[in-house]
Amino acid sequence: MAGNENAGTAEFRQKMSPFREIAILGPGLLGGSLALALTGSANTRLWARRADAVAEILEKKIASMASIDLKEVVHGADLIIFCTPVEVMREIAFQISSHILPGTIVTDVGSVKERVLRENGQLFANFVGSHPMAGSEQGGLDAARKDLFEGAVCILTPDQSTNTLALQKVTAFWDALGCEVQLLSPREHDEIVGAISHLPHLTASALVRAATSIPGRPQRFAGQGFRDSTRIASGPPPMWAGILLSNRQAVRTGIRRLISELETADSFLETADEEGLRKFLTEAKTIRDSVRSKQKENGGI
Amino acid sequence: MAGNENAGTAEFRQKMSPFREIAILGPGLLGGSLALALTGSANTRLWARRADAVAEILEKKIASMASIDLKEVVHGADLIIFCTPVEVMREIAFQISSHILPGTIVTDVGSVKERVLRENGQLFANFVGSHPMAGSEQGGLDAARKDLFEGAVCILTPDQSTNTLALQKVTAFWDALGCEVQLLSPREHDEIVGAISHLPHLTASALVRAATSIPGRPQRFAGQGFRDSTRIASGPPPMWAGILLSNRQAVRTGIRRLISELETADSFLETADEEGLRKFLTEAKTIRDSVRSKQKENGGI
Repeated sequence: MAGNENAGTAEFRQKMSPFREIAILGPGLLGGSLALALTGSANTRLWARRADAVAEILEKKIASMASIDLKEVVHGADLIIFCTPVEVMREIAFQISSHILPGTIVTDVGSVKERVLRENGQLFANFVGSHPMAGSEQGGLDAARKDLFEGAVCILTPDQSTNTLALQKVTAFWDALGCEVQLLSPREHDEIVGAISHLPHLTASALVRAATSIPGRPQRFAGQGFRDSTRIASGPPPMWAGILLSNRQAVRTGIRRLISELETADSFLETADEEGLRKFLTEAKTIRDSVRSKQKENGGI
Repeated sequence: MAGNENAGTAEFRQKMSPFREIAILGPGLLGGSLALALTGSANTRLWARRADAVAEILEKKIASMASIDLKEVVHGADLIIFCTPVEVMREIAFQISSHILPGTIVTDVGSVKERVLRENGQLFANFVGSHPMAGSEQGGLDAARKDLFEGAVCILTPDQSTNTLALQKVTAFWDALGCEVQLLSPREHDEIVGAISHLPHLTASALVRAATSIPGRPQRFAGQGFRDSTRIASGPPPMWAGILLSNRQAVRTGIRRLISELETADSFLETADEEGLRKFLTEAKTIRDSVRSKQKENGGI
């Protein structure tokens, strides 16, 4: 597969210059897409848990090297990127923490940040939490593509212990890949992403169940509206169960707010309050219309 | 604008042969798209409330004739199609009922059917309720296109008073336009469409409000998942308030079911029941994955 088309530019090379050896832990959609995007600008070292995944990576030339041996993959790396599910990061972090160079920068792509910082922040001197908001309901290496990150927002979550130089370098890294980098505290990140990403996911699943639970198989009559509004319910359940549980406080707050909004709408229907219902819908439309489209359809979740 | 590309075929002409003069009442997305789809196979007569809309229709050659005069538009029509909001159909029906030929077939494109049948079924000897599930959050004549109905499901809602021959002719009509015709009773229709179309619409609006009501303007971080799952919240509020109120019993049932599903998910989060949450998400994914895609992206709501 061809490398990132930006990879040859002087600006790209300058931003990537601190990173010659990049270890990517986990060969899913995000890890695979990172390896593809970095082809030609760094040596990419990809860790996978399963030998057949390693064979596939090597056959498709997705990374410079690949192995099931964590120590071999992280050996000599300038940058290590966790692309594993959030709930297994800690176990892997313990395995590699004594095998990395003092200056190695460590980051991740996890959808929750307080937990990741709490678990990994102290194990690595140069840890910076990242959350590139790119993804797809189609997970896995097969869905990986080199332009996945172009135009996506990437949230970095420094806290008081974050090394400033490491933050600068990780910012330059995502910027070079075409992301719009934003900074939030880990807590702000989890509250905001819980509302704008995790709550919609759970809502899509709940809506599929609610809409199809009456007699007559309503899904036979699903139009584009239903399909779009529930597309993310096709995401991988084990991954999403992990994300939702890792951020359950924010998600539960979101559920309470959503139920409250639904009850408000229900009261307008009960009393046939057309003006109230119009106002409810108009306010939502105004907010929704203000959400800018990304120039590229990158499928960020 | 060019006519429907099927319009020249023998099969199309045969299905459309009962209808030489077709009156379309209301020049919005559906009425405009119908007129475009019928260009070349019938004389299309388009009624609009406003003179500037009539001028636009004539300038763009969307219909064979257009007028603000209802009687003029329905005069001599073989088929009359209500494409107005549900809540104004009754008023228009009264105005035209004494001016139409005995054999004229009357149908509509409304999203609710019990109310429409109750209000209009007795005024017209040959009334057949239709609901082509095609649309877009972009309403209005500007969004009209001749292929809007291709591949869309169109639900017809005969009851005990429906003339069988009229039902056959209206079935052939939608079939010729590329719709997949399905039959439901008016009550079944409203329950099912309430669940699979009206509830998702209200949910999208409620989700926009809930997800953006915390500090930090979460909408700044909206990814493709949020955008897709809330796209329909951009639909026209007056039209949707009318639809939701016209079908409020089914919508309220849907709200109760959705709140119950959200509470179930919340209890899994509260007790950190990963297995329960995975099962919840997996069941939703299985149902969602079973929803077929239309071959064409026709934007049915």
